[in-house]
Parts: sequence; C-alpha cells; structure tokens
Amino acid sequence: MLLYGKPVVKTLRDQTRERVKTHAPHGAYVAFLLCSDDVASRVYIKKKCAYATLVWLETSLYESSSATYEEVIFHIHTLNQDPCCLWIIVQLPLADHLRPHQAQILSAVTPQKDVDGLNGDLFGQHLVWVHDFLPATPKAVFALLDYYQLGDLMGKQVVMIGQSNLMGKPFVLEAMARRATVVSTNSRTDTDFLRFCCSQSDLIVTAVGVPQLLTPALFEDGSLSWKVIIDVGYGIKNGKAYGDTDWEWLSRLGAHITPVPWGIWPVTVATLFHNLLLLSTLY
Amino acid sequence: MLLYGKPVVKTLRDQTRERVKTHAPHGAYVAFLLCSDDVASRVYIKKKCAYATLVWLETSLYESSSATYEEVIFHIHTLNQDPCCLWIIVQLPLADHLRPHQAQILSAVTPQKDVDGLNGDLFGQHLVWVHDFLPATPKAVFALLDYYQLGDLMGKQVVMIGQSNLMGKPFVLEAMARRATVVSTNSRTDTDFLRFCCSQSDLIVTAVGVPQLLTPALFEDGSLSWKVIIDVGYGIKNGKAYGDTDWEWLSRLGAHITPVPWGIWPVTVATLFHNLLLLSTLY
Repeated sequence: MLLYGKPVVKTLRDQTRERVKTHAPHGAYVAFLLCSDDVASRVYIKKKCAYATLVWLETSLYESSSATYEEVIFHIHTLNQDPCCLWIIVQLPLADHLRPHQAQILSAVTPQKDVDGLNGDLFGQHLVWVHDFLPATPKAVFALLDYYQLGDLMGKQVVMIGQSNLMGKPFVLEAMARRATVVSTNSRTDTDFLRFCCSQSDLIVTAVGVPQLLTPALFEDGSLSWKVIIDVGYGIKNGKAYGDTDWEWLSRLGAHITPVPWGIWPVTVATLFHNLLLLSTLY
Repeated sequence: MLLYGKPVVKTLRDQTRERVKTHAPHGAYVAFLLCSDDVASRVYIKKKCAYATLVWLETSLYESSSATYEEVIFHIHTLNQDPCCLWIIVQLPLADHLRPHQAQILSAVTPQKDVDGLNGDLFGQHLVWVHDFLPATPKAVFALLDYYQLGDLMGKQVVMIGQSNLMGKPFVLEAMARRATVVSTNSRTDTDFLRFCCSQSDLIVTAVGVPQLLTPALFEDGSLSWKVIIDVGYGIKNGKAYGDTDWEWLSRLGAHITPVPWGIWPVTVATLFHNLLLLSTLY
C-alpha cells in the first residue's frame, strides 16, 4: 500500500483556508529567505509560494547565495519590524559561509513570526503540552499517519533515522509523547543494530538524504506486510526526485510506504501553512 | 566501579558559590512549593534547603497537600511578583487532585524564575543550542558522566528507560546532540527487545521508580565490565532509599554504576542550584 500525501493535503488545506478567512489581516504576507544555491531548496520554495496562492496568502522572497551574515540578520530584523510580514521562513540548508552562524540566524527571527519553531520557544512549550505545536516536517509525518489511521503508537516500536533539529529530535519527542518505544539512529549507528531494530519495528521514519539507504537488505525478514515506512529524505539528481528508500521495491514486499516525491513532501508544505495560522492565534 | 556523586557535587558547589558571590543580590531567595504528602519529596526538599545554606542562599517553603488549584496558582503569581524571590521550584509529583492541572501550574511560573525549565522555553532553546540549559536531573547525569570521563557518547549506544518531561525527554535530546544512538523505552516496551538493547548498549540510564527493574537477568551476557549504568530512580520504603537497579549485584559483575542514594541524587541538588545561577545570567 502506497501512502500518498494528496488526500492529507486536501484536509489540511481546507482547514488552513478557513483560518485564513477568519484570522489573516488584509495584506498579510509570508517572507521566505533562500540563502544558498541548493537546487532542492529552490524547488521546495517554489512549491511553498504556489501553495500560498491556493490558501489566499501573499509571499515575498529574499534570495541570495552570497549575502553576508550581517546582511541576513539585517534583513530578518527589517522583517521582524514590518507589521504586514506575519511569518518568516529561513530555508535550510544555508550557504557554507553562513552555516557557522545558523543558530544565531534562526534565533534572530522573532518568536511571533517563527513558523518553523526554530528559535525553540514553541517547540519547548510543546514538550510540556502548553501548545500543540510541532515543526512542519514531523507534523506532516504525524498528520499522514493519523490520516491513514496509523498514528496510534502506544506500545509500538519506532525507528527514527536522522537526528536533525527540524525532524529527528521533535519527531522522537512526539513519538515518546505517544508512548512508543523509540530508537534514534545516526550515521555512526552500527549496521547490525540498525538492521535488528528495523526488522523488529512497526514504524520506520527516515530523514537523512541518502538515496537507497533503506533497501530490503536492511530487513532480516523478507515480508514487510506489517510495517509502515515514511520517507522524509529528499534530493534532486538529474532532474529526478529521490528519497532515502527504495520505495517501489519495499512496497512490493508489502510495506505501507510513502512514495517519493508524492508522499510526505506535499504534506510538509501544507503543515507549514497550517502552522502559520496556528502561530497567529498563539501570540 | 561505583560512580559516587560526592566529588561531582564538590566541583559544582564551588562553581555555584562563586556565582552566588558575584551575581545574587542581597535578600534573594529560592521558593519551594510542596503540594503533596509524598515522603520522598519531603526528604528531597529538605536536602535542597540544606544545600541552599551551603551556597549562601535563602529559602522559603510553601507546604500543603490540600491546597486547591486556585490557591496554588495564586501563590505562584505572588512569588512571580516578589522581586526578592528569584527562583520558584514546584516539587513533583503533585497531590492527586492537582495532577490534571499540572501543565497549567508549571507554566504559571514566570520563565525568569523557572529553574526546572518546566514551562519549556529554555528547554526548547537548548534544543537549538541558544542556551546551555538542561533540567537539573539530566544535567546531573551528564555532569557525572563528564566528571568520570564517560560523557563522550559519539557513536555509542544508549538506552534511556523512562520518558518523563523532566528526565527521559531532555536526556534523549542531549544524547542525540552528543551523536549517540538512543533507545527510549517505557513500561510497554517488549521485554525481549529491552534485554537485547541493554545487552548491546554502552550506557543505560533508568528513571522510572521501579525497585529491582534492572537486575543481571536483563543482560544476555554475564560480564558487564564495559557498561555504564546510571540509576536515577528514587523511592523510600521502610526508611531505606532504593533505585531502579540491583546496583550491588550489577557492580560485582563489573558494571560502572551509581549507588543509591549516593550516586546521582546528591548531584541533582547541585545541578539544580547550578541552574539557578545560570538562569540569573540568562535574563
């Protein structure tokens, strides 16, 4: 069974439109900062801008792969002070020369406009259940799981491959909150241990950007009919999108799996905009 | 080898005294709220008050197992507004009738005085490395590991038993930040899977409050000479403190392990006060 994102997006889009109608003031816009020449980032930002139109929101785009740290900070401060700019999105990864300053750049965004929750305040509050706020990518994974009625993780075994701030860490916390046993792995994880955990687990989520990381060889047992696999990996090579999994093969072995790029990625755009409107009501 | 907390406490206490001298204004005090009749909590608060004296700080104690939700909130608001009260500590667990309101009670503490990081702001900021702030208990575990030069977790395998907001969740995040492979388990985790993970892992941390949860039977392999075990469990029965491990037996099998109550618990008091002074410089 292939877990397509399209019907999940439709549900989220309807909710977001409803909230735009009731909450977004006239002239409100979303600001995007693209500070790298990463191809996948550019494609992704285009999709976000297109989605904005679908939910009747304006956008602005600041694009420069050579901007200095000071210029980026200055631009963020300007956006912080613009009353029409309601949300600010800094697209990652940043250009190499900006990477050492990533934490400072992300925390320069005022919490009221910080859609990705990257300055940490909302994310931290989610941990203690003050707000129902998760960054867009893990939120997309849970929205998709919930849509296909696979989101009840109580007592289930879950493997999360990748430990980023935007995906791996918040995903693990939400899976813990849903009372799952969670295994968090990275590039240094012992392959035999990873294989054992993947074979044992009910749900595997991968978000590392390594094509063909998850192949049938990673499973001791041939049949995958009781497994759910969510592929959050995303790259573009020779014009073709790829994720972390060999999803066609894995689905033939019986796994419930998200195809790339029609699985989780459109949902992340929808959850991002869902978060925008949530943010407007929190502050 | 037994991992005693005493030398770790000494290092932290010296640092805290230094900061009290330079940062704490005259008359500054720490407010404790004990809203339950839990015996272990009472003992623990006494230890905190004694430690406060050692680092030259004043304390106040609000103690009632029958206070209503409204009374507790009112008291917290009063403390929030008292300029001499620099820090507020709500001791958990709360009395049964207050438990449904726990999130609201903890988030009523103003972030500037929230030592445990329970309202989530600082904790969230730690996730994105804006501040070096961890709640006292996981901070104690890492302080002890670092003291005994066991804190380099890069590529190591770690099991965290327990998923609480104050220990399991922040511990897992910090272990991920240190690039460990992390397994997070709860009471519903399959026993065979837990046994496998414990047998495979370099570090096991347990924080659930179930006496004798971790016995040698949980390890496939008899020899534990390369394992580190940190026992954060804490209860009192017939006047005797107990943790989650059979630490005497496990240490005889070669594990590096914290004895109860002379291992991690005194360190949590010291890291709590260490956080107090850190908090004063953050806001």
